Amino acid sequence: MNKLTQCIAVFTLALCTMTTMMAQEKKVPTSYAELLSGSSRTAQAMTSVNGLQWWGDLYLLVNNNTLSATNPKNGKVSTLTTLDDVNAALTAAGVGQLRSLSGQTLWEDKPWLLVTMPGNYVVYDWQTKQIVRQTKTAQATGRADYSKESGHVAYSVGNNLYVDEKQVSNEPEGILVGQSVHRNEFGINKGTFWSPKGNLLAFYKMDESMVTQYPLVNISTRIAEYTPVRYPMAGMTSHKVWVGVYNVATGRIIYLDAGDPTDRYFTNISWAPDEKSIYLVELNRDQNHAKLCQYDAESGRMMGVLYEETHPKYVEPEDPIVFLPWDDTKFIYQTERDGFKHLYLMDTKVSVYPEKHNAAAGGTYTESLKTTQLTKGNWLVQGIVGFNAKAKEIIYLSTQESPLQSNVYKVNMKGQVTTINNDVAVHSVSLSASGTYLIDRYNTPTQSRLIDVVEIAKPANKQNLLTVEDNYDGLLMPQIELGTLKAADGTTDLYYRIIKPADFDANKKYPAVVYVYGGPHAQNISATMRYGARAWELYMASKGYVMFCLDNRGSENRGLVFEQATFRHLGVEETKDQRVGAEFLMNLPYVDKTRLGVHGWSFGGHMTTSMMLRLNDIFQVGVAGGPVIDWQWYEVMYGERYMDTPQTNPEGYEETNLRNLAGNLKGKLLMVHGYQDETCVPQHTLGFIKACVDANVQPDLFLYPGHQHGVSGKDAVHLYEKITQYFEDHLK
Amino acid sequence: MNKLTQCIAVFTLALCTMTTMMAQEKKVPTSYAELLSGSSRTAQAMTSVNGLQWWGDLYLLVNNNTLSATNPKNGKVSTLTTLDDVNAALTAAGVGQLRSLSGQTLWEDKPWLLVTMPGNYVVYDWQTKQIVRQTKTAQATGRADYSKESGHVAYSVGNNLYVDEKQVSNEPEGILVGQSVHRNEFGINKGTFWSPKGNLLAFYKMDESMVTQYPLVNISTRIAEYTPVRYPMAGMTSHKVWVGVYNVATGRIIYLDAGDPTDRYFTNISWAPDEKSIYLVELNRDQNHAKLCQYDAESGRMMGVLYEETHPKYVEPEDPIVFLPWDDTKFIYQTERDGFKHLYLMDTKVSVYPEKHNAAAGGTYTESLKTTQLTKGNWLVQGIVGFNAKAKEIIYLSTQESPLQSNVYKVNMKGQVTTINNDVAVHSVSLSASGTYLIDRYNTPTQSRLIDVVEIAKPANKQNLLTVEDNYDGLLMPQIELGTLKAADGTTDLYYRIIKPADFDANKKYPAVVYVYGGPHAQNISATMRYGARAWELYMASKGYVMFCLDNRGSENRGLVFEQATFRHLGVEETKDQRVGAEFLMNLPYVDKTRLGVHGWSFGGHMTTSMMLRLNDIFQVGVAGGPVIDWQWYEVMYGERYMDTPQTNPEGYEETNLRNLAGNLKGKLLMVHGYQDETCVPQHTLGFIKACVDANVQPDLFLYPGHQHGVSGKDAVHLYEKITQYFEDHLK
Repeated sequence: MNKLTQCIAVFTLALCTMTTMMAQEKKVPTSYAELLSGSSRTAQAMTSVNGLQWWGDLYLLVNNNTLSATNPKNGKVSTLTTLDDVNAALTAAGVGQLRSLSGQTLWEDKPWLLVTMPGNYVVYDWQTKQIVRQTKTAQATGRADYSKESGHVAYSVGNNLYVDEKQVSNEPEGILVGQSVHRNEFGINKGTFWSPKGNLLAFYKMDESMVTQYPLVNISTRIAEYTPVRYPMAGMTSHKVWVGVYNVATGRIIYLDAGDPTDRYFTNISWAPDEKSIYLVELNRDQNHAKLCQYDAESGRMMGVLYEETHPKYVEPEDPIVFLPWDDTKFIYQTERDGFKHLYLMDTKVSVYPEKHNAAAGGTYTESLKTTQLTKGNWLVQGIVGFNAKAKEIIYLSTQESPLQSNVYKVNMKGQVTTINNDVAVHSVSLSASGTYLIDRYNTPTQSRLIDVVEIAKPANKQNLLTVEDNYDGLLMPQIELGTLKAADGTTDLYYRIIKPADFDANKKYPAVVYVYGGPHAQNISATMRYGARAWELYMASKGYVMFCLDNRGSENRGLVFEQATFRHLGVEETKDQRVGAEFLMNLPYVDKTRLGVHGWSFGGHMTTSMMLRLNDIFQVGVAGGPVIDWQWYEVMYGERYMDTPQTNPEGYEETNLRNLAGNLKGKLLMVHGYQDETCVPQHTLGFIKACVDANVQPDLFLYPGHQHGVSGKDAVHLYEKITQYFEDHLK
Repeated sequence: MNKLTQCIAVFTLALCTMTTMMAQEKKVPTSYAELLSGSSRTAQAMTSVNGLQWWGDLYLLVNNNTLSATNPKNGKVSTLTTLDDVNAALTAAGVGQLRSLSGQTLWEDKPWLLVTMPGNYVVYDWQTKQIVRQTKTAQATGRADYSKESGHVAYSVGNNLYVDEKQVSNEPEGILVGQSVHRNEFGINKGTFWSPKGNLLAFYKMDESMVTQYPLVNISTRIAEYTPVRYPMAGMTSHKVWVGVYNVATGRIIYLDAGDPTDRYFTNISWAPDEKSIYLVELNRDQNHAKLCQYDAESGRMMGVLYEETHPKYVEPEDPIVFLPWDDTKFIYQTERDGFKHLYLMDTKVSVYPEKHNAAAGGTYTESLKTTQLTKGNWLVQGIVGFNAKAKEIIYLSTQESPLQSNVYKVNMKGQVTTINNDVAVHSVSLSASGTYLIDRYNTPTQSRLIDVVEIAKPANKQNLLTVEDNYDGLLMPQIELGTLKAADGTTDLYYRIIKPADFDANKKYPAVVYVYGGPHAQNISATMRYGARAWELYMASKGYVMFCLDNRGSENRGLVFEQATFRHLGVEETKDQRVGAEFLMNLPYVDKTRLGVHGWSFGGHMTTSMMLRLNDIFQVGVAGGPVIDWQWYEVMYGERYMDTPQTNPEGYEETNLRNLAGNLKGKLLMVHGYQDETCVPQHTLGFIKACVDANVQPDLFLYPGHQHGVSGKDAVHLYEKITQYFEDHLK
């Protein structure tokens, strides 16, 4: 971490100089709405790279309703088609008109434009200037899954699945077909999966009719309406899921013969390249035993268990297997079995005796196929970007350089890793067809948004397509510093970020506010613009607060031991780490230790409440948004992974139930909740309010009718002004 | 009003002297809970008059489980029975044991004690020391209606009616039998009515299955539960009501033949003394046309319309007719037709031609019986206390002396009124059997609780049974003044009360808070202890606030014109009157006009919100509890009386909808609501919050899960500390 810290010191200095120099010209933000100018400024700049994506090894752009392709090798630009061309063909075919070329679907390997009309999916070939395919649907669709290979389209109407013009399922309310399942955990985000050639459709079916309905109420109608949602709470009866396969040609459906689906998870669906089999990662309800299974796609018969993994805490498969494009017999599996997520090459041609091995992270694994670990180290793979088939390389993102960064690497089949970049930045990339070029979208601690086209073989050979140096250019920005502290365990390094008002005076005493999330799968501090400082933190700094943020144990990008430190008692270790951060903060010479606040949302709302109750000697004011209060009210999938069930971990649920600590409240605590929150139901906040009334302590409350787990759209301004005002009223 | 004002001046002076004198010894209340000591102190003192009621012309008391009777004429006390005696008889009969003589039912005209055992109503005669009657019920009952005459008992199990051991009705959910109807408006507070001899039971049946359910949610269960209530909102489909008569001997039920019950109200049920007929006051949904109807109790046939009344605004019958005890052919009807509620004697023997007359208050009336107005004047009758059959007099309470007082009067059949008392006090009395004596419970501006036994013929001849001079004796109390202001109409006198901190210093500037209700059927300022100042007002005064209260037009005890000034635009005139009060208040030399607050609950919550929005140039801080925000969300019975329907009065509903004014919010406004409020549903507050978010203004919110329209029990302390804290945080 030395390198990063050094770099940060330099950054801070540079910023200070700049601040002094430009103070006269820059404007102090006076409302939260002004801070939103940053994202609109970025969005405006992004119009110059409208439609940016690969077509083979050329990159596409849409400008003035003209689609062009650029060859990164020589910069040569060719026009592919125009809106007028497309509309001429559409008109001739009598299927309407497009208003803009922007936002249409294009593919890397076809000269095709997919035009979505109500009830009609039309493919236009810009080389032949012809409409080459039309697919009719039973009605105008919302989000749909179109197969480029076959031209079939799968979509939902209500709770049922349709393909093209045909209704495929006919289930009553409570049974969903073709939609995402398991509350989008395990990396699941859709419910239909076309086979490689588009002849077969794998789909999810979920029966949740046995799941208790949570009673949400919509108060915006003439008379308030009851609008329940099925919400399986930890330890309660959960839904059941099946995976079906629909054969478009025959109209026949089979279901994979996976046995009784009660208390099981079917995740990470992928097709074999030959369409003949389907792979799933199956998990038990305890989420401590995963199995990679192969099923025959025609009969549904189970063909074998290729890989198994257990862990005394939990395993969390989130990545479908990916076959090598140059070898249909080998695929990549991703697992954290050695403590960090890494790439493993599995060979379907070479079976091995399925012996159980102890895994480095404390669990076991059993391989039935010959397996080679390709990446290794105390860092983690963040995602496969793609392949270079010619060079037989996998291009991926990882934290190898620093847990704050996402950099690009490649690895060959011998496990030899080559660094493509290692700059202090967070990269998000897409690969050209051959694997030769990257579109590299990234930002750095001092740059809001950059897009380059990079030649992988010579990364220095890059062309910049977009640079937004500072999306808040024109607004006076605070000073930002980064550092590390030792966690409450005395050994683990934790990153923190500290933000000082632009006119910071070391001789003054400032009120300080901690922004916290602290839960799994999120990281607040990274090598993005201003190290990830949020608009609200900048706003608070503009009002004269020192802002502090610490990624405690349990958060993302640090590996399994770091994440699992919180197992079975969520919020407890995290709060201990936050105490370390708070004690550091309050002892800074320029911080007024009698004026410390904290704010967070969701898991961060839980943490905020926890910190106000468990660290009530430190924090005077808190604003907890959409908080989990009692894990028994959270859903099965996420909740039981980290907490087990109330039946098997009663002491953990008791210890972490913040209602039990309501009487500890000494400071001012505002609880905010979306009244339509289907993720973290309002019972959390309202139950906490009741506990506080019972304990005769005085929290405050605000609800956002009509909003779900986040307060989005224009009302976000209202929310952040409310939060800010609460600190202004009580901490200043 | 001169007399009252004079008296008040004296009172204030006396209090000042006392305050100075006793300041050292008295304690400043430091929590709202301490103010509750007052009611517990009163309750404790009241144990000395345990069981006080009439038995003939002797008054009963229960002391040490001994029932005694006292003759007020000579003070002679006789023991009637003891707990041991009663238990001996109960044990002999094998029907259990009583734990205490307190709280049992006794009657004025029988030597009987009604003992309620689970499933058994037992009557003990203390003269014969025998159990003289037992009535078994199908199961243990809650609130039940026992007929002293026949010994039958009527009660509810769920939504159905039972009599003795028999289930009388068998209706599905949504139909209630034998319970109060029309949401307790029109003076209705029960659903069963025994005939004078106890042979027949008139009862209400209400079908509300067609009424929309309002979706309340109970968050105190493992998973929050949907607990809807049928709530007919203004202008929407309402329930239907029938009146049935159950004949205990035959088991037969007939329903009164009143025609289609759609959009009609059946109110003020009473029996003819001979049990042969039943009287109802029937109203149309518009509530502008009332009819006193007589029905045959055996056939249900309508026998005639005895009296009709209309008013262009509304009529509001709230008093069943009462027959003269010495003449079964005459009864008393009460109406506000001349602008003030008065007693009218109607003679069932003398029919008159039913000609329509113009009434003094602007409506019409049509009498079919010879009618004599017994009381008359610009004051109102507050209730019939009883009769002196020998002297042929009616004893009643009225505001004849002052609208702030309730005094006792009698009137003979010629309309000659005699004053029994006229002191500055609020009396609540019960009459001995002959009408000779009163038990007189009252309080005065300087006395918390008094009970006298008074000889009506010589009111000076009284015996004091209880005196609680000051239930806050020991706590330092503020100074209280009364006065009048001209209403916004420039002519009407309005009463106000002002409370100054105990250590008031005329040279200081105090923050001031208005306590407001302002709706019909309530009066905040009266000749009770401290002129009706509430514990919370005293608490606020102890914290250094000047407290102010004004009974605006629309409130109680001032007659029909005063009340109806608000018709079809509730909250508008009231707020104009409150502006008069606020401008008076802010111009007081010791009030800091930049620090004005307001608080009220229910209609007072509506007023508080209205004042924060319409008088946003005056009020900085408000706390609105359980408010009506939009009258379309209030119920049919009350709402349409004052507002008509949203269909017939769209402009009135629009004008009074406080959501439309949300954008006017400039100050700090806390909205508080019971989350189980079935009277004023949570949609009001939550809908207002949504309107404020939409208008980008910042109110605050608090909900009390588990509480209905009031926050009662121990949580009242939490509520009043919360309200107080809000003013402390933002007004001080």
